[in-house]
Amino acid sequence: MSDYTPLSELGEFGLIKRIKEKFELRNASSVKGIGDDAAVLEPQEKQLVVTSDMLLESVHFDLTFCPLKHLGYKAVAVNVSDIAAMNAKPTQITVNIGLGARFTVEAVEELYEGIRLACENYNVDLIGGDTTSSRAGLVISVTAIGEVAKGEAVLRSGAQVNDLVCVTGDLGAAYLGLQVLEREKQAFMANPDMQPELENKQYIVGRQLRPEARMDVVYELKELGIKPTSMIDISDGLASELMHICSQSGVGATVYKDNLPADGQMLETAVEFNLDPITCIMNGGEDYELLFTIPLSDHDKVKNHPDITIIGKITEASEGVNIANKHGQAFPLKAQGWSHF
Amino acid sequence: MSDYTPLSELGEFGLIKRIKEKFELRNASSVKGIGDDAAVLEPQEKQLVVTSDMLLESVHFDLTFCPLKHLGYKAVAVNVSDIAAMNAKPTQITVNIGLGARFTVEAVEELYEGIRLACENYNVDLIGGDTTSSRAGLVISVTAIGEVAKGEAVLRSGAQVNDLVCVTGDLGAAYLGLQVLEREKQAFMANPDMQPELENKQYIVGRQLRPEARMDVVYELKELGIKPTSMIDISDGLASELMHICSQSGVGATVYKDNLPADGQMLETAVEFNLDPITCIMNGGEDYELLFTIPLSDHDKVKNHPDITIIGKITEASEGVNIANKHGQAFPLKAQGWSHF
Repeated sequence: MSDYTPLSELGEFGLIKRIKEKFELRNASSVKGIGDDAAVLEPQEKQLVVTSDMLLESVHFDLTFCPLKHLGYKAVAVNVSDIAAMNAKPTQITVNIGLGARFTVEAVEELYEGIRLACENYNVDLIGGDTTSSRAGLVISVTAIGEVAKGEAVLRSGAQVNDLVCVTGDLGAAYLGLQVLEREKQAFMANPDMQPELENKQYIVGRQLRPEARMDVVYELKELGIKPTSMIDISDGLASELMHICSQSGVGATVYKDNLPADGQMLETAVEFNLDPITCIMNGGEDYELLFTIPLSDHDKVKNHPDITIIGKITEASEGVNIANKHGQAFPLKAQGWSHF
Repeated sequence: MSDYTPLSELGEFGLIKRIKEKFELRNASSVKGIGDDAAVLEPQEKQLVVTSDMLLESVHFDLTFCPLKHLGYKAVAVNVSDIAAMNAKPTQITVNIGLGARFTVEAVEELYEGIRLACENYNVDLIGGDTTSSRAGLVISVTAIGEVAKGEAVLRSGAQVNDLVCVTGDLGAAYLGLQVLEREKQAFMANPDMQPELENKQYIVGRQLRPEARMDVVYELKELGIKPTSMIDISDGLASELMHICSQSGVGATVYKDNLPADGQMLETAVEFNLDPITCIMNGGEDYELLFTIPLSDHDKVKNHPDITIIGKITEASEGVNIANKHGQAFPLKAQGWSHF
């Protein structure tokens, strides 16, 4: 352990200085970043969107299988995902971190390297935050700010009857990735000499450990001339998110079981774990894909898009929120969602 | 305990709904608050300032003597204090909270009642955040946003040679309040039947448990036609904050021991604890007063202000940062500051 530097040797100001050196400001609206009582922004005539999410050790992540670099990346990505779901462009983040005494300078730098990579990929500026010790586990709290032209923000509440319901990417993989990681952890604890069996699980494990916010699709929809009528990101599971859109828009919806986008590795693994793949897709969560609705007239613009799948349609509120099979039978959706308490 | 509601009975969405009902939006720039993937702001032509701070149980507060309502208030106030130090007006906050399973709905409501009171006092809108469970202690992470006209933000870096160094209020009391609370906690643990001895300690204990951000002084300086050349809030201690101003402004400073503002209860308690009052003032921290510099020409505007004390002057960098006694002897300042690691 002699190659590692204890945090106490560097101190808080030393740590902040070291972090600051590795981050640059990319956005014109970031007038002043780290280094004063607060950062200064100049959003000009834009509207801003603001979101904040906190990840806690043993609740949201398990350091026995989650590399710190991925965790740093994920903490940013899940917040950018909320910015994407507003149809906005992320511009700034603040990051508060609580670190246990066992953390070395090198470990903290790994974490910030993941944060830096995410800032680079999403073109976001780290403008401030707080680094403190924690008597408990690792705590990461991120606030993300984004910009959107006035009138361009997309809320959950704008879905209209007859709109198409679309999702990006595929669903359920992050949940099954977590099942695999948990299984390997149990096996490792029973026998520390074993090597984790992650062959043919790379995709789903990657979906769990290092999700991406779908900013690419936000930009592509703009290029296609499509403004979604409503949008939400899928953190808790498709069923729960669809219910948010329906209740806030005052509409119903039907999604078609056969249209739900699934990855092959996810399907195989569901069978292996004796889980219903549709349940994993509907309630798995943590996929950080986008669920959105568009006018029927935009159908042709998305029908062949490789990253967008039309999974259903918006109906009258009185019809409820349903999932239909190929025989046309519809069943009311249940949001198992997630309950932390 | 049957009068208390476990959090699991309400669930996360139920809790958010209950919180949301108690908060209203006051600022024109808050277009949409809680309830979507992100809040929407419209700052118009203003610049924004953004700051974020996290409070962790057993590191920043001790629930054995810190009432939840005060804690909620403090979590907002310490962030507003950073906004004040930028010469800005606070407008929005996001609050992320991690709660242990032992928390009841009633306890969470106490915490949010403190947050609500602070929002009311500082005219701030709660626009979002995250409520999650914590396996560790209570975690509160707040991000505050403020508005300032372009060119009106005050940084740490603008102090000029010959400027006056000023502070608001009095210093050292929050630190001694904490010493009293710690002593009473030890006494209580040794003998749970004892009653805490807080007579004649109300002021200093209040300074520790429920500090106020000095927005009043920010508004008064504006009315007096004074724009500080530099400003910082005193969270870590006067010595440490003065050194930040000096190093970022490229100047030195001398403060006069006899000019340092001290409260009588603080002085008495320092003697009682066998502590040097000057050390408590210089390094105690957590007072959340403002330290700022103004041009010498503004001297008459502040000299009789009841909440502002002129404690020294800015010098050439080569003279260093010193504390002088009444005989004119100067000693280099040491920032003991605070080190969490």
